[in-house]
Amino acid sequence: MTPSHAAHPDRLLPADPGTRDIARRLLAHVEDLPIISPHGHLDPAMFTADAPFPDPTTLLISPDHYVTRVLHSAGVDLADLGVGGHEADPREAWRIFCSRWKLFSGTASGYWLEQEFQHVFNINPDRISAETADEIYDELAAIIAQPDFRPRALAEEFGLEVLATTDDPLDDLAHHKALAEDPTFTPRVLPTFRPDGYTKMYRPEFAANIERLIDVAGEGQTGYEGYLTALRNRRQYFIDHGATSSDHGTHNADSTPLDDAEAQRLLDKGLRGEATFAEACAFEANMTYRFAQMAQDDGLVMTIHPGVHRNHSAGAFKRFGADTGHDIPFRMEYTNGLQPLLSDFGENPDFHLVLFTIDETTYSRELAPLAGYYPSTYVGAPWWFIDEIDAMNRFRAATTGTTGFSRYSGFIDDTRAYCSIPARHNTSRRVEAGYLARLVAEHRLSEDRAADIIVDLIDASPRRVFKL
Amino acid sequence: MTPSHAAHPDRLLPADPGTRDIARRLLAHVEDLPIISPHGHLDPAMFTADAPFPDPTTLLISPDHYVTRVLHSAGVDLADLGVGGHEADPREAWRIFCSRWKLFSGTASGYWLEQEFQHVFNINPDRISAETADEIYDELAAIIAQPDFRPRALAEEFGLEVLATTDDPLDDLAHHKALAEDPTFTPRVLPTFRPDGYTKMYRPEFAANIERLIDVAGEGQTGYEGYLTALRNRRQYFIDHGATSSDHGTHNADSTPLDDAEAQRLLDKGLRGEATFAEACAFEANMTYRFAQMAQDDGLVMTIHPGVHRNHSAGAFKRFGADTGHDIPFRMEYTNGLQPLLSDFGENPDFHLVLFTIDETTYSRELAPLAGYYPSTYVGAPWWFIDEIDAMNRFRAATTGTTGFSRYSGFIDDTRAYCSIPARHNTSRRVEAGYLARLVAEHRLSEDRAADIIVDLIDASPRRVFKL
Amino acid sequence: MTPSHAAHPDRLLPADPGTRDIARRLLAHVEDLPIISPHGHLDPAMFTADAPFPDPTTLLISPDHYVTRVLHSAGVDLADLGVGGHEADPREAWRIFCSRWKLFSGTASGYWLEQEFQHVFNINPDRISAETADEIYDELAAIIAQPDFRPRALAEEFGLEVLATTDDPLDDLAHHKALAEDPTFTPRVLPTFRPDGYTKMYRPEFAANIERLIDVAGEGQTGYEGYLTALRNRRQYFIDHGATSSDHGTHNADSTPLDDAEAQRLLDKGLRGEATFAEACAFEANMTYRFAQMAQDDGLVMTIHPGVHRNHSAGAFKRFGADTGHDIPFRMEYTNGLQPLLSDFGENPDFHLVLFTIDETTYSRELAPLAGYYPSTYVGAPWWFIDEIDAMNRFRAATTGTTGFSRYSGFIDDTRAYCSIPARHNTSRRVEAGYLARLVAEHRLSEDRAADIIVDLIDASPRRVFKL
Repeated sequence: MTPSHAAHPDRLLPADPGTRDIARRLLAHVEDLPIISPHGHLDPAMFTADAPFPDPTTLLISPDHYVTRVLHSAGVDLADLGVGGHEADPREAWRIFCSRWKLFSGTASGYWLEQEFQHVFNINPDRISAETADEIYDELAAIIAQPDFRPRALAEEFGLEVLATTDDPLDDLAHHKALAEDPTFTPRVLPTFRPDGYTKMYRPEFAANIERLIDVAGEGQTGYEGYLTALRNRRQYFIDHGATSSDHGTHNADSTPLDDAEAQRLLDKGLRGEATFAEACAFEANMTYRFAQMAQDDGLVMTIHPGVHRNHSAGAFKRFGADTGHDIPFRMEYTNGLQPLLSDFGENPDFHLVLFTIDETTYSRELAPLAGYYPSTYVGAPWWFIDEIDAMNRFRAATTGTTGFSRYSGFIDDTRAYCSIPARHNTSRRVEAGYLARLVAEHRLSEDRAADIIVDLIDASPRRVFKL
Repeated sequence: MTPSHAAHPDRLLPADPGTRDIARRLLAHVEDLPIISPHGHLDPAMFTADAPFPDPTTLLISPDHYVTRVLHSAGVDLADLGVGGHEADPREAWRIFCSRWKLFSGTASGYWLEQEFQHVFNINPDRISAETADEIYDELAAIIAQPDFRPRALAEEFGLEVLATTDDPLDDLAHHKALAEDPTFTPRVLPTFRPDGYTKMYRPEFAANIERLIDVAGEGQTGYEGYLTALRNRRQYFIDHGATSSDHGTHNADSTPLDDAEAQRLLDKGLRGEATFAEACAFEANMTYRFAQMAQDDGLVMTIHPGVHRNHSAGAFKRFGADTGHDIPFRMEYTNGLQPLLSDFGENPDFHLVLFTIDETTYSRELAPLAGYYPSTYVGAPWWFIDEIDAMNRFRAATTGTTGFSRYSGFIDDTRAYCSIPARHNTSRRVEAGYLARLVAEHRLSEDRAADIIVDLIDASPRRVFKL
Repeated sequence: MTPSHAAHPDRLLPADPGTRDIARRLLAHVEDLPIISPHGHLDPAMFTADAPFPDPTTLLISPDHYVTRVLHSAGVDLADLGVGGHEADPREAWRIFCSRWKLFSGTASGYWLEQEFQHVFNINPDRISAETADEIYDELAAIIAQPDFRPRALAEEFGLEVLATTDDPLDDLAHHKALAEDPTFTPRVLPTFRPDGYTKMYRPEFAANIERLIDVAGEGQTGYEGYLTALRNRRQYFIDHGATSSDHGTHNADSTPLDDAEAQRLLDKGLRGEATFAEACAFEANMTYRFAQMAQDDGLVMTIHPGVHRNHSAGAFKRFGADTGHDIPFRMEYTNGLQPLLSDFGENPDFHLVLFTIDETTYSRELAPLAGYYPSTYVGAPWWFIDEIDAMNRFRAATTGTTGFSRYSGFIDDTRAYCSIPARHNTSRRVEAGYLARLVAEHRLSEDRAADIIVDLIDASPRRVFKL
């Protein structure tokens, strides 16, 4: 079998030969740098346990809704892939995947899977088909049974230097503590404070969450005051365990603050389950403002990523739960929504606010202008469906003219697919090399300056922006 | 005269020589495949009559509002082009067109016209000017008088295999029937069920249409029940005459269902001409949901294309009527609007829903994520103003990373300009070849896989998605 | 020191060698044409005084909020740059700029500054650094002390043929008059009627402005009638002093007219400071319609550029005033907003309406379809944050397929940075050459036709559209 395109050293670089030569040289400056992953969704227990991965399906398919959604769109029942706690035979699920492998052509998930097969497992992805499903399953099963393929060994192999997880405010962070105190494990695994479950009144668990939060960390205070106190305390607890950022999956970007009496009134309605959706959004907007306010004191970097209709398919949500592939973006605006927050805190260079989006229209219209003025504000990396090759190029082309390269958050993999991490970061490095090479080829930048920029983008930016 | 650029075999292929070589090879796989046109606006009577086209102006200019709008924007009175039933001297109109031919440079319509002149009529388009207007008029008049240039002969010449028309629900479909029963005519000419005139209360003809509909097909029932029954019956009538799809030019993408009592109440207001625009939209949204519901039973593919302000220029609408070049798109959202419909029917792989848009911002933000999850949902080809070369490339680059190639409807020409059909389909094949060639050149895809994909896109996709 | 990339003759041209060759030839047709600048923000007094520029900082940094915002985003206090009337040591400010020069890499402002250093002052921009700040300051100070670098001499050097300023309706236009009557000064310096301060009730100076306006030019009439009369009179005064256009920075694109009684009622509320924001917008929309109506009679070209949240950072606005780098765009729509205006006046080819935007999503969705139909309507050049290289290419690619090249306003520099004018116009010429070269390379246009088009775009379009 001829080598796969996935193994080609020039993959993702621009086709024009002159530009490609420049890109190759720029890539060489960063291809082997360690991986800094300031936001993602891995389970830290993976590293404390360091157990072998159970089987190829559980490793590569079932937990990754970017993979299962593609199969689902072709008519596969998510239950047959082991989604949402459904029991599925791993080998059968693997066969389903292999027989539909061609659906992934051209997708971001397909590219990452190819890279994983090729570079993590040394399996030529062109081999994958219905006919070879069992054979590849057995090969992979044998590979992940080896000690070299346990989570800690892979972390070393991947060059992982920093990895942030995403955690509930009441998490005890015991795994993070254990890893930090373990001298045999070098990567820094940091928690991230993610309070969404404590700000969204429209979620069924809201009242119970709030009660538990105030009970645990409210210092005996009650109501809105106890709630704010408890959140402040838990942020400090996270900081004490290494956290440098808080993450906010808000409905929209509104940040209008409420006075305390109104906040208390809405909180009471929310706790009784009587808040309208508009009231719930008003409370959430107030909390966006309050978290920014807390960050003035405790220094946590604030990342926000609004604009997604979660659990779009009602029936699928009922059967499989959340995060199963049907969170669908909608139209977003930041300029008016963030004005109260930025007017009050945006001029503070020690406050770091990273804006993610899934609505590409906001790049040149809102995010780049905001980050190009406010010293607090950074444009987040392309996220979700727009974290693929062409979309990353669009991101660069839409923001750089307004903000340059210095207001960029650094690459975020945001993944729950452990073995895709090297491929994702490598993709980002190749895309940056290609984009910069074009600027050099068009005489908009010297190659020396481009070399400095790519090192800054890949290595220094995430450290600086996320205070690592 | 040197050969026109319009005749160049590499037209529309990427300029980079290495990428162009790949594109040429990919194009060769599909350039000569038959034409499948699952949505358009030709009159089927054209093929039953098979009369010669009357004159160049009536063939190429007057009925094509994409052509007349360009001339109008330069100050030409639409009446002088024979638009909207106005009498105009065809030769005079032709002179107007030729003397302003340069305005078309760079436009999609200009490209198609060039291709028609070059490849259908063998006239070098670079010859066109005020000075040559009469000469070319006479040449064209002579050409279309030949038997080879009658509608049926051209259909064969064009390689037309399937052609769908767009029809009123009460159309008797006699022409479709005659063509289907005619053993001397091989293309399949299929009707499409287009009920817009029966769902939009804000149109003046609404009440009369509904009355006639219920009268003809309501089985003696009245009111909303009779209305639904009649629509179901007419859909079946269309299916019996070969229809595979229904088409819906809705105002927006809302699909919120109403209960029967509320639907009846709104229908009554609409029939009395008393419905507000908001009420009319609520009724239309309910009908979007109901047509999807009907499709669960009868299997018609459902295509929707919302988001257009029809007849924007009030004075021109009064003088020339609808479809005269001033339907202007506006901002669109699908995620929330389609949620009720998709939550109830979207998981059914036998239901086919094709989403068109004229708002490119929805490609990566909404359409690709929806089609990348729901097994029912397909992303429609670029439509209208965004069916040109650069826009098609943007479409591919914006959707493929999320959905791959399998969730695409296949190319739709949507035209009323018969002789532009080969050029439009050829354009699509060239753009697909160019896009795929770039992925191959960037080592994101093997050339073998790209060859399979382009054949699937051009040939298999429209057959599969439109159930042909 | 090797020559800077900023001096490369192929800068900004496409990297593909074949395409670049074509672009070079196309550029040669227009690179040395005179500069037509139909909209900008220079002070005409600069040319009547013809004084030497005081120092490098006052010339290049303090007044250009595109430059100061980049420094501000890196944590620099705007006061230290002399913004908003704050006293700052020019040499200290210059050191701040030079030490952060690398932040400008990849930005539009950075590109223009490089071009100014290279081509206006003959200073290699690669030299700029903290270490060389004083040395370059002194060199520049010596250069601008020379007679050749006074405003009038530079105008000749730049090849300035037409330059429009932006002026208050009550300006006496004495400088414009003096320049027009001065036989030693050849460029035409034209005023532009900009009535924003007289239509926006939400500005604190509104009532005083209106009172003064009616007092000066209302012919003794009062109220809304006196207001309209005064505006008509001042438009005529501007026309008498060479103005060919009026410019409108409206909040949105709404153009719904009010009847006179309602307009009077809102005007009264606005004068009493009691109008809500919605009422202020309704009045402004009415005035958009009224200015279009006035243009039917007096022939002024109307340019509008809505969609910007002015003075986003409340604290910075208080400290530094307006136009200090935090005007942030928001989502825009034109189709519905402009419908009343276009329905009543849009079909008149003698009325010229130029639509600018900062929301790129409107290019293909709204602006190109509007300009591709209405003989009055032109698509404005990319403006503000989207007037950079990649954005200009996106503009072309998004509009040309629908409108061709004939509905384009011609390039607008919109600048208050005098020495950036040649670089900006040169950029536009290079981008047009590159875009057209791609069409030629893809055989979508003959090179002869492309050569005609680029001359028309650069030279004839602005003269025609702005009635120069």
